[in-house]
Amino acid sequence: MRLATVRTDKGTRAVRVEDEEIVDLGVSDVGELLRGPDWAQAATADGPRSPAADVEFASLVTAPGKIICVGLNYRTHILEMGRDLPTYPTLFAKYPEALIGAHDDIALPAESQAVDWEAELGVVIGRSVRHADEASAAAAIAGFTVVNDVTMRDWQYRTTQWLQGKTFEATTPVGPVLVTPDDLEGGVRPALSMSCEVDGERVQHANTDDLVFDPVALVTYISSVLTLNPGDIIATGTPGGVGHARKPPRYLSDGASLVTEIAGLGRLVNVVRAVAAR
Amino acid sequence: MRLATVRTDKGTRAVRVEDEEIVDLGVSDVGELLRGPDWAQAATADGPRSPAADVEFASLVTAPGKIICVGLNYRTHILEMGRDLPTYPTLFAKYPEALIGAHDDIALPAESQAVDWEAELGVVIGRSVRHADEASAAAAIAGFTVVNDVTMRDWQYRTTQWLQGKTFEATTPVGPVLVTPDDLEGGVRPALSMSCEVDGERVQHANTDDLVFDPVALVTYISSVLTLNPGDIIATGTPGGVGHARKPPRYLSDGASLVTEIAGLGRLVNVVRAVAAR
Repeated sequence: MRLATVRTDKGTRAVRVEDEEIVDLGVSDVGELLRGPDWAQAATADGPRSPAADVEFASLVTAPGKIICVGLNYRTHILEMGRDLPTYPTLFAKYPEALIGAHDDIALPAESQAVDWEAELGVVIGRSVRHADEASAAAAIAGFTVVNDVTMRDWQYRTTQWLQGKTFEATTPVGPVLVTPDDLEGGVRPALSMSCEVDGERVQHANTDDLVFDPVALVTYISSVLTLNPGDIIATGTPGGVGHARKPPRYLSDGASLVTEIAGLGRLVNVVRAVAAR
Repeated sequence: MRLATVRTDKGTRAVRVEDEEIVDLGVSDVGELLRGPDWAQAATADGPRSPAADVEFASLVTAPGKIICVGLNYRTHILEMGRDLPTYPTLFAKYPEALIGAHDDIALPAESQAVDWEAELGVVIGRSVRHADEASAAAAIAGFTVVNDVTMRDWQYRTTQWLQGKTFEATTPVGPVLVTPDDLEGGVRPALSMSCEVDGERVQHANTDDLVFDPVALVTYISSVLTLNPGDIIATGTPGGVGHARKPPRYLSDGASLVTEIAGLGRLVNVVRAVAAR
């Protein structure tokens, strides 16, 4: 099953995405759908249909209760940097104001001179879970999506804590769809080719089976701290190839094209657009 | 004006707190009140009254859109540690699942052996603001409250990013009330004596006028990154005297009493209670 949140004249709507059509599921976004009593019924629910070609995607979940991001999580990249594999996942946050739709412009703030890309697999929670074991962690995963954790490196490193560089308004595309694990190679531990292109040049390329802490491990770990709830999003970390690590560094400028793709999940296609400062 | 969110048989309610009575304001919590069209009318609104003595406080805002925490923000403490004053505020996050009421038990997780206190001044946002100047930042502040940013030091320092040690479920008391700036010494830059006591021993003592980045400066800075919205909470940082910095360190154990007080804002009175692990 493929789910999305789309914009209509009457606000956003959660839809099931079929080959040629989308089916309105009667609620305002995928987050509301997942918080409902039995969202799996969306696989067969009927509703008003419209052509899939006309769709304008909103952020997959418009207002997630939590967005939890993971750093340093691609095995090959950690080892090639000469580092040891981490014992614990590095977790940091992003706020909902950062999220945009799969084809929206990325707001390039005048306040940053170092805007970078981070292609990531996103995990979407479909069931409340606390102190999860492996089985309940797997069952809590509604599905997967594509995230680009666009990062202002200058702000990220102003202090020891990365938050302020990770949560600029309207900078993080999430979508286009949620795909349930049954439709994916690897299921709840997806084994999917991912890539990121800037202005047509491939800059990141990896497979999601290279995660040190896979989605089930992350849900287990995070749920030992607090409850994960439906609609929460985990951005699982990015592989090598970010612009900040290049010599010289490379950053996104006004008009740049950013394409973030995960096989089986789809692609984010965004243009970076300068916005005025105060 | 003093506002609170209280628990009733019918769920939580936003109330105005008077000397002897509370006045029901017709909405479910202070967050909903602040998101409404003109919350300042709450100063004179009438509604069902009940005795203030019977009140059970919920978290002041039950589900803030954002909780933004500040580190390293008390001037005297930074200087006595031999450090330079910071150029930028250190920002990190906490999720709403961490919040509890002013008199609730603090959930001591079996997973941590280093649970510490951090008395803080909390800023509550009352108006959406982006790219604030000094005047609009001041106008965006609904008022102030008391926070104890209870921290699992072992989890805080597992990785470079503090989030996982800052957001354990049901560990952060917020309240008891929001006090508007017009009722406080210093207004939007409060000059209030604050203290924290553990088992009757005073462990922290400072004045909120010792902040490096005061509430107006924090709102200005954060709003250059993203929009602050009504009900958002900023925890402005803690002064010296935390348990982790003692030699030997001192942590909170089952049954410990924690009293966090800011003159003019009131006090959090919490008992630490062990909860079972998975």
